[in-house]
Amino acid sequence: MTDTYSFNASAALLPAPVRGRLREAIEDWQGTGLSILEVSQRSGDFEQLVDRVLSRLRAVLAVPASHAVLLAPGSSSHQFAMVPLNLLRGRGRAAYVVSGTWSQRAAAEARRWCAVQIAASTAGAHRVPRQQELTVDPDVAYLHYTANETLEGVEFAYVPDGGGPPVAADWSSALFARPLDAARFGVVYAGAQKHLGAAGLTVVIAREDLLGRAAPGTPTVFDYAVHREAGSLHASSVAMAWYVADLMLEWLAAQGGVGALAREAEGKAAVVYAALDAAPLYVNAVEPGSRSRTTIPFALREPGLQARFLEQAAADGLVGLTGPRGLRAGLGNALPLEGARRLAAFLGDFAVRHG
Amino acid sequence: MTDTYSFNASAALLPAPVRGRLREAIEDWQGTGLSILEVSQRSGDFEQLVDRVLSRLRAVLAVPASHAVLLAPGSSSHQFAMVPLNLLRGRGRAAYVVSGTWSQRAAAEARRWCAVQIAASTAGAHRVPRQQELTVDPDVAYLHYTANETLEGVEFAYVPDGGGPPVAADWSSALFARPLDAARFGVVYAGAQKHLGAAGLTVVIAREDLLGRAAPGTPTVFDYAVHREAGSLHASSVAMAWYVADLMLEWLAAQGGVGALAREAEGKAAVVYAALDAAPLYVNAVEPGSRSRTTIPFALREPGLQARFLEQAAADGLVGLTGPRGLRAGLGNALPLEGARRLAAFLGDFAVRHG
Repeated sequence: MTDTYSFNASAALLPAPVRGRLREAIEDWQGTGLSILEVSQRSGDFEQLVDRVLSRLRAVLAVPASHAVLLAPGSSSHQFAMVPLNLLRGRGRAAYVVSGTWSQRAAAEARRWCAVQIAASTAGAHRVPRQQELTVDPDVAYLHYTANETLEGVEFAYVPDGGGPPVAADWSSALFARPLDAARFGVVYAGAQKHLGAAGLTVVIAREDLLGRAAPGTPTVFDYAVHREAGSLHASSVAMAWYVADLMLEWLAAQGGVGALAREAEGKAAVVYAALDAAPLYVNAVEPGSRSRTTIPFALREPGLQARFLEQAAADGLVGLTGPRGLRAGLGNALPLEGARRLAAFLGDFAVRHG
Repeated sequence: MTDTYSFNASAALLPAPVRGRLREAIEDWQGTGLSILEVSQRSGDFEQLVDRVLSRLRAVLAVPASHAVLLAPGSSSHQFAMVPLNLLRGRGRAAYVVSGTWSQRAAAEARRWCAVQIAASTAGAHRVPRQQELTVDPDVAYLHYTANETLEGVEFAYVPDGGGPPVAADWSSALFARPLDAARFGVVYAGAQKHLGAAGLTVVIAREDLLGRAAPGTPTVFDYAVHREAGSLHASSVAMAWYVADLMLEWLAAQGGVGALAREAEGKAAVVYAALDAAPLYVNAVEPGSRSRTTIPFALREPGLQARFLEQAAADGLVGLTGPRGLRAGLGNALPLEGARRLAAFLGDFAVRHG
């Protein structure tokens, strides 16, 4: 029996040692006699856990003192509202780079509170915009972009620069897959389910001087400053998600940190793209410079083969390859290189048999 | 070695069979080969889980067809904003019953969007208001109350009636501890961590005709209608919390449903209050008719004994008795009657030794 690898891109794969410790924590967390799900939010043990996760995040991402690190309840969908509510600071306009579905959703949500300048749009173009294609008016409150589009499979290899306004970015599916220079962002956020193992929390790194100026009518739980001041414990929080994050950060550090993970992400993606490019059976239209390291959508030139493809892949222990549109290989941080190699080998074999 | 019982009121105790199934699901959920934390939000298995939880909730609470049942991301803190944003429907006023800290917070959050009429206030009075003490103007959009105040230990034994405006209620710490007649509410909500085992989701039962009229500027994730239309899967959701809810609902049904649980809650509370009332060492100032079934704050007449009390209780396997203010016994749905009896016996013994 070989290992099963999941390529679904909506939830991170958990390394085996992390699963083991979680199993223990369901029964008895840290010798408390209580399940991690039963631990009080207001206990010293829980507060220490939260502090440890925030410190580890700050360390692993080398976040400078100019920026706050917090984990806010909710997902990217919450951030789509939180970014304008916190960053508009009385201004009436914001700029959005549109490179696919998620950036479009972020821009649509912002329109509830401000006018939106589309700095550039490459929706449908199988690539992200180049820096020189961006138009950002100096009066916008911020420039937002989506580091990786999980549906279109396009990813920024650079940080867009609006020539002044702070940059806000959704790194949900890119975190740890590329080095992140927090100092370049006004706000960067990332849903924990993609890279820290459990849904319910979103990593937010925000420049201190931008906080505390939320728009009137901002729900309290949508104010970054409230979470920063409460040490990320303003509202009832997902204890399990904090603990998974703690274990994942420990595991990430043991892998060699972000630099090592980013190199591994590059390597895994290269293996899969090479297999896709080698066989005419597979289609991935994304320009090489815009290819995602973490979410690789592809199609079969003969769509009638898709059911057989998925069935044979599953028989081979390769699951989660059904994408929202056709096929997709999600390569999360915890997917080992061996998983990518197994997928590449299967892609090759299947193409030989059916190409 | 006797069992450990947790009396912390911020997280529900998990029955042993539920813990066992969760432990399995961390490794392999339902034979998928994947951890419950790795399962895709967009998979058929996950969608079935969500539908099952919503159906079970509707069945166990006998929710009529006039009302939608959904689980929204977040906690009560999110609902404090969602209630006014969804229920004001163009009106400028809402009425709030203030019976303690949580209802005060709910009212304070509502003031961001409307004027608040205080229908009655018994903050500091160790009781909830009586129906005849309420003043509710007919032009308010809704009347809000908090079924149980976890800090003050006061609970409504009746559903307040505003004489017309829909009733909105926070049942976070009362759900399953009393029968809930959903038909009497415009919206009733309850954070899952108190009774369904895991933080990250909030049960919302809402009258269908009130939905779809959220205020302009409502974040999409705060619109009840969005969650109803998406089958509670609009945003990335906490898979683990859904699965815990599923197991807890199965367990609740096996206990005999809400009627049986409510009788048990009444019985457990009676045992603990009797022990507190029997010994002059203990203070609980709440009027008998307003006493909480689930969160019982108390104090020692000799405060210097508190550290010894907690130490000896812990040695006896009784943990989580430190409240936000002095001592507190949280009696969750999954705490067996035996846990309440053990606490009562300890209260008696400690009073004999130190009273």
